[in-house]
Amino acid sequence: MARRSPAVRDTKERILKAALDVFSEQGYLAASVEEIAARAGMTKGAVYYWFRDKEDLAADLQRKLWTDIAVEAQRDLDPAASTVENIKQSFRAYLRSLKEHSHARFFLRDCWAVPSLEVAGRAQHEAEVVLIQRQVQQGIERGDLVPVDPETLTRVLLGAFAEATLHVLTNGTAEDATEVIERLVDAFAATPTTTRKPSRTRTGTP
Amino acid sequence: MARRSPAVRDTKERILKAALDVFSEQGYLAASVEEIAARAGMTKGAVYYWFRDKEDLAADLQRKLWTDIAVEAQRDLDPAASTVENIKQSFRAYLRSLKEHSHARFFLRDCWAVPSLEVAGRAQHEAEVVLIQRQVQQGIERGDLVPVDPETLTRVLLGAFAEATLHVLTNGTAEDATEVIERLVDAFAATPTTTRKPSRTRTGTP
Repeated sequence: MARRSPAVRDTKERILKAALDVFSEQGYLAASVEEIAARAGMTKGAVYYWFRDKEDLAADLQRKLWTDIAVEAQRDLDPAASTVENIKQSFRAYLRSLKEHSHARFFLRDCWAVPSLEVAGRAQHEAEVVLIQRQVQQGIERGDLVPVDPETLTRVLLGAFAEATLHVLTNGTAEDATEVIERLVDAFAATPTTTRKPSRTRTGTP
Repeated sequence: MARRSPAVRDTKERILKAALDVFSEQGYLAASVEEIAARAGMTKGAVYYWFRDKEDLAADLQRKLWTDIAVEAQRDLDPAASTVENIKQSFRAYLRSLKEHSHARFFLRDCWAVPSLEVAGRAQHEAEVVLIQRQVQQGIERGDLVPVDPETLTRVLLGAFAEATLHVLTNGTAEDATEVIERLVDAFAATPTTTRKPSRTRTGTP
């Protein structure tokens, strides 16, 4: 992996950048704070000034990455479009953004597999519930979505999105994930969507 | 909680039963192996003969509970019914079974919140993927389900089921979960289902 000259804004950012490189190359479990410090061009003590331990560093990095990706996914929301279209659009933007963060791919996958990192992921998840539930609630009030319990629908959608994302991060394709998720979201449109494209014919697994 | 006289088959079962009682009453984190041993009417040493530590005990208990619930959920599968009906039926049976295991409710919720227990949950999840993917694959081959990628659909369904279940274990209702999940599963029927009941009208959150 090419190491570009850092244009970082501060020490903390520089450490996080180095950590992502090291985690991506070696995996979270194998990586050491020593290696991260060396990569950032500073002492181990300097890293420990900012972060309690490797886990704390990884939790911070995870929060930063998911927030960046979520912000990118929300950027293209169109207030004039239906809630269903906006939710579908967000998921597509989310997968696109994930692709652009491809250097973070292995680290984000680790976040699902390493129990202590899962805690930060779960906190992130609850923040997303609040965000999406607001959209869902408005969609129901505007008559865009069928009148089901907003929190239940939000949690079910996020559960589906999370597993689709994890599958794309392992061996699934973004195309398959988008097809399944869009069909799922369409099921909650108050007026049946007529633009649904016929499914591709398949002869087996790709 | 009333303590019934144990009709247990062996020591291990007796320990697991005592552990479930103690975990349910005190929460996983507060519970001690000492208390579990006392409840089972044996020494701490006897418990450690069977289980490495509290975490090992809880992981075993979790596997046992989820397996029991999954077996109950699969029991009423009807080979003559459509895949969509069978999947919906399984989810209903699953929630019903969860209700019957109400004494395990707090423990099962803990399993999502305690990182080290999440590992056993994730292993369980992967076993379910194999099971459900077989059903999904057959459903696609029989023309019951739309031809999407079977693994993607399976993972998305299980992600939705898991979050719906967790929500029911916290503050959601089984009725809301069933309504959302059935609409979601219907979206993957090759022939649109015509039996869908109109949604209840809602004026706000319940």
